[in-house]
Amino acid sequence: MISSLMLAALSLMVSPPAAPAVADPEAPRPNLVVIFTDDLGYGDLSCYGHPTIATPHLDRMAAEGQRWTQFYVGASVCTPSRTALMTGRLPIRSGMCSSQRRVLFPDSAGGLPASEITLAEALKDLGYATGMVGKWHLGHLPEYLPTNHGFDSYFGIPYSNDMDRLASSPEGRVAITEPEIEYFNVPLLQDTEILERPADQRTLTRRYTEQSVRFIRAQAEGNQPFFLYLAHTMPHVPLFRSEEFVDVSRRGLYGDVVEEIDWSVGQILDTIRVLGIAEETLVVFTSDNGPWLTYDQQGGSAGLLRNGKGSTWEGGMREPFLAWWPGTVPAGQVVPDLGATMDLLPTAVLLAGGEPPSDRVLDGVDLRPALLGTGPSPRDSMFYYRGTELYAVRLGPFKAHFITQEPYGRDTNRIEHDPPLLFHLEHDPSERFDISADHPEVLAAIQSLADEHRGSVEPVPNQLEPRIAAD
Amino acid sequence: MISSLMLAALSLMVSPPAAPAVADPEAPRPNLVVIFTDDLGYGDLSCYGHPTIATPHLDRMAAEGQRWTQFYVGASVCTPSRTALMTGRLPIRSGMCSSQRRVLFPDSAGGLPASEITLAEALKDLGYATGMVGKWHLGHLPEYLPTNHGFDSYFGIPYSNDMDRLASSPEGRVAITEPEIEYFNVPLLQDTEILERPADQRTLTRRYTEQSVRFIRAQAEGNQPFFLYLAHTMPHVPLFRSEEFVDVSRRGLYGDVVEEIDWSVGQILDTIRVLGIAEETLVVFTSDNGPWLTYDQQGGSAGLLRNGKGSTWEGGMREPFLAWWPGTVPAGQVVPDLGATMDLLPTAVLLAGGEPPSDRVLDGVDLRPALLGTGPSPRDSMFYYRGTELYAVRLGPFKAHFITQEPYGRDTNRIEHDPPLLFHLEHDPSERFDISADHPEVLAAIQSLADEHRGSVEPVPNQLEPRIAAD
Repeated sequence: MISSLMLAALSLMVSPPAAPAVADPEAPRPNLVVIFTDDLGYGDLSCYGHPTIATPHLDRMAAEGQRWTQFYVGASVCTPSRTALMTGRLPIRSGMCSSQRRVLFPDSAGGLPASEITLAEALKDLGYATGMVGKWHLGHLPEYLPTNHGFDSYFGIPYSNDMDRLASSPEGRVAITEPEIEYFNVPLLQDTEILERPADQRTLTRRYTEQSVRFIRAQAEGNQPFFLYLAHTMPHVPLFRSEEFVDVSRRGLYGDVVEEIDWSVGQILDTIRVLGIAEETLVVFTSDNGPWLTYDQQGGSAGLLRNGKGSTWEGGMREPFLAWWPGTVPAGQVVPDLGATMDLLPTAVLLAGGEPPSDRVLDGVDLRPALLGTGPSPRDSMFYYRGTELYAVRLGPFKAHFITQEPYGRDTNRIEHDPPLLFHLEHDPSERFDISADHPEVLAAIQSLADEHRGSVEPVPNQLEPRIAAD
Repeated sequence: MISSLMLAALSLMVSPPAAPAVADPEAPRPNLVVIFTDDLGYGDLSCYGHPTIATPHLDRMAAEGQRWTQFYVGASVCTPSRTALMTGRLPIRSGMCSSQRRVLFPDSAGGLPASEITLAEALKDLGYATGMVGKWHLGHLPEYLPTNHGFDSYFGIPYSNDMDRLASSPEGRVAITEPEIEYFNVPLLQDTEILERPADQRTLTRRYTEQSVRFIRAQAEGNQPFFLYLAHTMPHVPLFRSEEFVDVSRRGLYGDVVEEIDWSVGQILDTIRVLGIAEETLVVFTSDNGPWLTYDQQGGSAGLLRNGKGSTWEGGMREPFLAWWPGTVPAGQVVPDLGATMDLLPTAVLLAGGEPPSDRVLDGVDLRPALLGTGPSPRDSMFYYRGTELYAVRLGPFKAHFITQEPYGRDTNRIEHDPPLLFHLEHDPSERFDISADHPEVLAAIQSLADEHRGSVEPVPNQLEPRIAAD
């Protein structure tokens, strides 16, 4: 007997990616703009409670749309988190996570497998024009770049802005905390070609914005809907901003950088308003993972959430999430429902009249009810991986930690918990009060959900460990 | 030679309270409503980033007015904090703080001295009708009650709702964390008479609201401006709420209680709107001190700020502050300027056309420029006392801790710091990174400000230690 999971695995090996079918000709087919930042914390926007970072454009976006308060990313570091966003699946399903190298590096040989269906491919198959601007980090070799994963065009850097350091740069952290652009050799790409190397990081936020505005204007003239993925390089260290944003923020350098991103969001939304396409355009804003707390004042804040980037505590994986679509997404709503970046793929495909891929396990769910204000989010769980290991599981308001570990540092203090730690995240969002002793039934339910989930995971090649052979 | 400080001290001893003079007949003379809560944290409202406490009425108040992000109270516990609000002065100036008993208790013999000029007296002298509803905690003996401190009427409880426990209540914390109303003998007063004992705490928030609405309606018919001080008993433990608010909040019991207060704010603002007096009424919302963190899930959250109630870390003394006055206070502003509850007295008196008392040291400043959107707040410093000791001083964005101490617990770990700890609160609102070594010039400036401040403090009788003689 061949199980359906085995069949799914077989189909992965033998078939080309299945194109989503256009199933609903009456669907609204909105344009989609995904604005994604890097290492922004849950507490770093004014509308999420930061006292000294001014984000008037994001605050306005929230006031005109929805502000979600329990929205997750698929992993607590860059590469696997972006994989989740692009594929609608946990990164464990595509090999885009590892417990040694946690992200891709400039010497990595791997990348997002061609067998994965990206959000761009899914929407392109439904007739969308697709463009990407910004940081990719799903493989820098040509076959892995955005234009080979469903994007018509690409302008951005292929991996993190602290990678590719030149031997002439100062040793250690100082090159990152007191950076000069020539310390890093990160290339700026146009499609698959190098446009500039090193990229002038001071102007990246501004140039990403200009490229995005240009893309939106060009698309608005056509009769295709469009998908724009704008993935800011900032506020990942080393922190750079344009001259216009030097010393503008009360929060110092980090604030300057976030305030330039806020300006950028204002530019995007104003462009959409001026073009008269606001009522046909869904814009969402979120980030890849929590703040990098080991960079002191150059790292952000997770607000009231515990820990940050690299950790499976909430501060590592819960992010600001704003959704804006005037006339369709209700204005001024605070949404405490569960959501995740993985949900964007099925949600966008359904909004575009298609059917999400059915030949593989999707971890994303259809967020349309919550997004359109017609009902609750169907998401009721969340899996928190570190590398390839499942560290924690949320079910309803409860979260069980099987393993905890500090994200960085010499002693990361890995602890296996038996029984797991248990927190009621809605009563205790800061994960302070372990209530495992009071709720054995909840632990049992979470254990069984974890087992079921593990059973759905097929072994796939690890994409993060292989390295390019040295010359 | 007699110094001006000595003259001020002499005048305190020999003169009756000086009435503020009506100096500006063109002043707007707005009605003033001060809504004050108890132990609410900086992070407990949705508009300050709480993920699971729904506060739509407060969020709307913020959207229609100002949301301040660096607003302080005068002390980190109840009695001295309320003294600061009522007098416009640090509690050290009236003897309303002590390093043994930190607040007044049911056996306390002291209270706010008659020589102090309260906000109610100052506005009454300028022709305002004055009413108070809620928790007083500035002395429960008749001479100290609100109607002997400038309020025309009073309805509320005289001290904290966890005091006055009956001998028949269970021992220890359980009486507070799993409370019944009959465990506490706290009286409900009308003016100076006991109306109900024990007060039915379940309905206090509702009844305070009804009384407040009745007061506003009655005043709106007259031709005097009015001042209403609504000081909620909640969310101080033991937590109680009306039947309508049982299990309404995702945040559990604490959330229910805060959501009932949010409802109450909605009732107050709606009453003001319906009566057509919104453009003549300034409403402010804040709390007395930070969250009581030792009460686990029954305590609130200071958001990204460090520590809570009882502490001179930011979480103890920085609070949400909303200001609403349609047509006059700019709508939708986030205000990062410094402000403090002590500023309300001079600000309100000036708005009413009077002059703040000039015969004593006032610690409050005129917030009108920031409140009306015409300029920055003149406040640039803040003094953080624990009891009668100065623990920390803020100057501009910098805060120096001379002494730190855990607020509660068996080992409060009092530490004197030499040099003081130094934090840049605007870059580092969570007080994580001591930068004292980098800024000796800032430490010197703060030391000199602290010395100057200490020199302005005259010895006065301690009001918190004396006890009522046993029968």
